[in-house]
Amino acid sequence: MSKSLNIAVIGAGAWGIGLACTYSRIGNVTLWSRSEPGKLAETGRLPRLPEIKLPASINVTTTLPREADVAFLVVPTQALRTISTTLNDILPASVPVIACCKGLEKDTALFPLEIMEQTMPHHPKAVLSGPNFAIEVAEGLPTAATLAASSRLFVQEAARKLTTPNLRLYASTDPIGVQLAGAAKNVIAIGAGITIGANLGENARAALITRALAELGRLVEAMGGQSRTIYGLAGVGDLILTCTGAGSRNYSLGVALGKGNSLSEILAQRSTVAEGALSAATICDLGPRYGVETPIMDAVYRLLKGELTPEQARDELLDRPSRLE
Amino acid sequence: MSKSLNIAVIGAGAWGIGLACTYSRIGNVTLWSRSEPGKLAETGRLPRLPEIKLPASINVTTTLPREADVAFLVVPTQALRTISTTLNDILPASVPVIACCKGLEKDTALFPLEIMEQTMPHHPKAVLSGPNFAIEVAEGLPTAATLAASSRLFVQEAARKLTTPNLRLYASTDPIGVQLAGAAKNVIAIGAGITIGANLGENARAALITRALAELGRLVEAMGGQSRTIYGLAGVGDLILTCTGAGSRNYSLGVALGKGNSLSEILAQRSTVAEGALSAATICDLGPRYGVETPIMDAVYRLLKGELTPEQARDELLDRPSRLE
Repeated sequence: MSKSLNIAVIGAGAWGIGLACTYSRIGNVTLWSRSEPGKLAETGRLPRLPEIKLPASINVTTTLPREADVAFLVVPTQALRTISTTLNDILPASVPVIACCKGLEKDTALFPLEIMEQTMPHHPKAVLSGPNFAIEVAEGLPTAATLAASSRLFVQEAARKLTTPNLRLYASTDPIGVQLAGAAKNVIAIGAGITIGANLGENARAALITRALAELGRLVEAMGGQSRTIYGLAGVGDLILTCTGAGSRNYSLGVALGKGNSLSEILAQRSTVAEGALSAATICDLGPRYGVETPIMDAVYRLLKGELTPEQARDELLDRPSRLE
Repeated sequence: MSKSLNIAVIGAGAWGIGLACTYSRIGNVTLWSRSEPGKLAETGRLPRLPEIKLPASINVTTTLPREADVAFLVVPTQALRTISTTLNDILPASVPVIACCKGLEKDTALFPLEIMEQTMPHHPKAVLSGPNFAIEVAEGLPTAATLAASSRLFVQEAARKLTTPNLRLYASTDPIGVQLAGAAKNVIAIGAGITIGANLGENARAALITRALAELGRLVEAMGGQSRTIYGLAGVGDLILTCTGAGSRNYSLGVALGKGNSLSEILAQRSTVAEGALSAATICDLGPRYGVETPIMDAVYRLLKGELTPEQARDELLDRPSRLE
């Protein structure tokens, strides 16, 4: 890969910083930060990932780029519509754009790529997802992720070009599956935490994760995606990281719920929000809309709302009729 | 379920004790122990799961049963041929037999059900597998498992009848997939441990597990099973338990290997053997036999043999050509 690839990273949160660091190994990186990056010149560090000293070659700016060979959009899903609308006006339609956020837009229940189909209709586009702690990617530790787009030709070439020495990309032609997995994994992580918080045991946690994956597989098929995507890096891979990695906000929220605390009690003691608690309602709307039963995600949602205790959820899930796996 | 079901559990290891406890909730259990069960009468406990006080209704005996409504064979895979041959002589062919061990017979590379096809050709048979810590099942904590047999009619009825208040069985018609997953998961758990021991990070561990599952999926299809079974309770479910549950021998062996210790050094310090270290050679023979590349399991095996360092394994796996997920 020639060093001449010009890569724009839009968003200087932890994941944007991680991507900027790894892409500085194969190209010239411009990292866009919404606000003035503070003491960057002195310290070489940005506030959202202060453990990492940025490579000096990364150009940090508050001016959105007007050209690039590729642009990564690394902003929260709820901010994607605004920023991508702006970018569409200034970035030529030939520049491929990569959505790097997970979740559904709250008001529309659209996935990131679907938002960008509306806001940047003419750009080639893909979505990046996987089991990726930003700090490990920034540190150069080996990481794999899925790059998904409906065009096989485009996504295979993009995955090859955008693989770095420590970020290995696998191409997928199922953006629906990749994005549904990314949106639902936080809800499942809350469920996994609940089983442990409620002392239901590790067997129950493993069973809940596995059966929730099966549930997601049925949902993704109903939505026009492929169930096997759920078992790839963006699905089971990310879920393993979220349910077992230290410091997952969603998992630890589940543990606290499982111990019998109410959501409002837990949120009152936290400065950060677990995304799964916000997205559960939107995710759980998908089941009825597409005619698929999602008993595990529904139970998590009702538990979040205080309508169900962990013991009631256990009994309900165990009492369902036996079926083929 | 009437209390009149007569259930024989052959083998009083931890898993046999766990099954005996849960089945004592729906039937009359006879638990066969190879050796005199010591101080059982005084303490109510058996040596392989001393935390559990056995329900008084369980009949512990050293005499193999001559009748039962169902018999669970809960002996190590390497002992299954001998015990099942004996059982075939004394147990009527109408009694369903359930293999409850994981792995491949060393000399023949046969799965448990395949061994029993030879030794108990006329009995209806199934294999039980899943994310099941014995002590949690014994304690009555909620657990799910897969019961697999080639006959859908038989296995669906058996799964329904053999589900207990805390052990929920899912029927599967893919015994090949279930058994391959059970045999390979210990090798993958060693690999997962290696990534952590070698400080390659949690991203790398999640990626290794996910890509190893994809590898297994291709292998199981080549062997005549279904790749989706790998993503069920006996596959991904059991792997989650093995790679994240406290005290997995295989995972901790991997951690020690990742830190640069040799297999012989590690084994010299241990009283127990990690099954994955023994089965890796047999598992890794399957790939070439069925024409499937299994780079991750191969790397674990070569690392076990001291032919590869974790760093070399990392570089090899990252250098493979990019592909569709």
